Amino acid sequence: MSEESSIDKLVTDLAKAALDASRVMGGVPTPRKNVTLLKLAELLEKKSEDIVIANQQDVEAARMAGLSKAMVDRLMLDEKRVAKMAKGVREVAELPDPVGEQIEKNVRPNGLDIRKVRVPIGVIGIIYESRPNVTIDCASLCFKSGNACILRGGREAYNTNLFLVKLIHEVLEAEGLPRAAVSFIETTERYALHRLLKLDQYVHCIIPRGGEGLIRMVTEEAHMPVIKHYKGVCNAYIDKAADCDMAVKIVMNAKTQRPGVCNAIENLVVHKDVVDSILPYVAKALAGAGVELRCDPTSLMALEMFGGFKGLKEATEEDYYEEYLDLILSIRVVNDLESAIDFINRYGSAHSDCIITSDEAAAKKFLAGVDSATVYWNASTRFTDGYEFGMGAEIGISTDRLHARGPMGLKELTTYKYQIYGSGQLRG
Amino acid sequence: MSEESSIDKLVTDLAKAALDASRVMGGVPTPRKNVTLLKLAELLEKKSEDIVIANQQDVEAARMAGLSKAMVDRLMLDEKRVAKMAKGVREVAELPDPVGEQIEKNVRPNGLDIRKVRVPIGVIGIIYESRPNVTIDCASLCFKSGNACILRGGREAYNTNLFLVKLIHEVLEAEGLPRAAVSFIETTERYALHRLLKLDQYVHCIIPRGGEGLIRMVTEEAHMPVIKHYKGVCNAYIDKAADCDMAVKIVMNAKTQRPGVCNAIENLVVHKDVVDSILPYVAKALAGAGVELRCDPTSLMALEMFGGFKGLKEATEEDYYEEYLDLILSIRVVNDLESAIDFINRYGSAHSDCIITSDEAAAKKFLAGVDSATVYWNASTRFTDGYEFGMGAEIGISTDRLHARGPMGLKELTTYKYQIYGSGQLRG
Repeated sequence: MSEESSIDKLVTDLAKAALDASRVMGGVPTPRKNVTLLKLAELLEKKSEDIVIANQQDVEAARMAGLSKAMVDRLMLDEKRVAKMAKGVREVAELPDPVGEQIEKNVRPNGLDIRKVRVPIGVIGIIYESRPNVTIDCASLCFKSGNACILRGGREAYNTNLFLVKLIHEVLEAEGLPRAAVSFIETTERYALHRLLKLDQYVHCIIPRGGEGLIRMVTEEAHMPVIKHYKGVCNAYIDKAADCDMAVKIVMNAKTQRPGVCNAIENLVVHKDVVDSILPYVAKALAGAGVELRCDPTSLMALEMFGGFKGLKEATEEDYYEEYLDLILSIRVVNDLESAIDFINRYGSAHSDCIITSDEAAAKKFLAGVDSATVYWNASTRFTDGYEFGMGAEIGISTDRLHARGPMGLKELTTYKYQIYGSGQLRG
Repeated sequence: MSEESSIDKLVTDLAKAALDASRVMGGVPTPRKNVTLLKLAELLEKKSEDIVIANQQDVEAARMAGLSKAMVDRLMLDEKRVAKMAKGVREVAELPDPVGEQIEKNVRPNGLDIRKVRVPIGVIGIIYESRPNVTIDCASLCFKSGNACILRGGREAYNTNLFLVKLIHEVLEAEGLPRAAVSFIETTERYALHRLLKLDQYVHCIIPRGGEGLIRMVTEEAHMPVIKHYKGVCNAYIDKAADCDMAVKIVMNAKTQRPGVCNAIENLVVHKDVVDSILPYVAKALAGAGVELRCDPTSLMALEMFGGFKGLKEATEEDYYEEYLDLILSIRVVNDLESAIDFINRYGSAHSDCIITSDEAAAKKFLAGVDSATVYWNASTRFTDGYEFGMGAEIGISTDRLHARGPMGLKELTTYKYQIYGSGQLRG
């Protein structure tokens, strides 16, 4: 057999087995799922040392290959990080099981009793990069929501992932559940991923977690639905009716509390009436926290007039599309609320945006007009997060519009079916 | 400009304009949408004669090209069919508007008031084949749900569709709404469709309505989510605890009331205990209605023993995967309920399936175990339909698992966003 055809067989067999496992998983009662998760948490703790040893192989190889310090850090597991993974699994066990929930009930005039019931999606492929904790996080979320998952982690974390999946399989087998409920592609060959993306007869959905290049490739190649987690070009808009103190606090929090994450802001939009009155105080606070400001001509002039700023830069058109994930912020002045909404719909990535205003009518226009997953009135964009939304966990933040938008928890890993109770009804 | 690049420009400009129009449409109040729909219904009636004349061009060309009688009939509009389209538009006007509905509200301990609100999907591409009524049906459903749509009808119906869209644009303009809210690709070039499927920055979702080949092509090429409406290989299962009379009636209704539609059954699954007691009566009724029976060895023997059947055939493995859309039914005998469920999950297309039984435990196992969009207990599969489900209208029946499953009405043409009301909350 050629190498390609042996990978074909590997991936196809894996996907078929995952589909079979998903049929079993859909019917596993909640307590049994929870017991399994708790045993996994226990085993992770017990095997903490061995996990770290397996991980060291990957870390060393990464260092040898000259990966950046940041990359190596993302890859690295120590006992503290393993303990955190185990804690995460316990938390998932405690969450309510979404499967079986009756979403709607509708008794028709002919007596047909139509019930819309929550069921697992089925088989979910997770494509991710270097963080090995994603293996445990995604496996436990998919497991709790009754799905089978196929994991495809980054090649840098291969040994760690393989070891973690071995532990998962140990627990699944001990509990009499199918190993294929958590499937792992046992090859780092890129061809395996390309094959997986064509198997829409077995795999119902793909969730890519990683950089834009990975997501773009998956979107273009996959024959099954993809739930994308694209970048966050988030915006804060200071309205003419904003409170100055609140504007300073929210913009500072949204930009600087953790600049490297997708719900931090990258653009600041300012109403022309407050360019002299509010913007300088916001800009001072930002500059004081080390934020580089990239200004349009109007804001540049205003801040230079105000004085005391060093290193102000002119923003280019490209800057407003940029996800810096760093202490950099672009500023744009607009003539009115409508222009602010248009700016955000054009340059933003429909992730998280906020308006700061005490004018309720303006806020409602903004909440309606900004076409993003999460739109805030007088609060930091940093709250876009499954935990902060009360979901208890998250598998990611969807920037897609279909099926799930914004933070995705267990419920977003389910779909529904109609169960219909009749008494002999015939269509006339 | 080469032909390809001029089509590129045509399709890209169209998609951009549709995105702009979708931003407007998302904010149009319900009464204004309804008035527009009622005016469209009126105009369709007023221009009925002209529509039929435009349609005659297509019908004549189709006859010249040697299209089958059935194809020509699908294409053909007479004044009665135009009146039916107008009536459909009036019905859509009367349906409740899903946009703006608050789906969930969740006030967090920090006071953040998180509201999940229904919003339009945005821009929906509809790819369809020869029936020109789809133009009006889909345009009115997308319009009512606040979406912009891009219509791509079959080349056979091009003149009819062009004329219908002209009427829609007339009404939109008179009402001060953007023409691009209902966009139509003004070329029959296939390349235009291929281009459209790549424009995921403007088009949020594609709904293909047509044969398997069309849907497969769209699924493989599209970069945006596709909501598929695949075939219906539906199954009825006669359990050992079935009532004979009910079994006869439901199977007859599900097979013969309208055999050419996707929710008619193609396979009959029978518990071995009732092969001699119930199956012969069901088979008699079917044969009497002209249904060709394709049997597995067990059912073939039983029916031959019972006697009085002519032209019984042996089923092949392929038969059980087949969507006949005709008076043909395949029969398979199973040893138990589990085997019936496995059979349906394997050969069916996860569309609509039913169990006939008076055993509640068996019914519940079946409702849970059959992994289909709609699963019935003691009722005909023919009820899988937006009208029968009380949706008032349907854009199709999704065989996908994500976003929408089963009949899709107005609500299924929407997504949601989070509108979050704060009072200065910062993330700690």
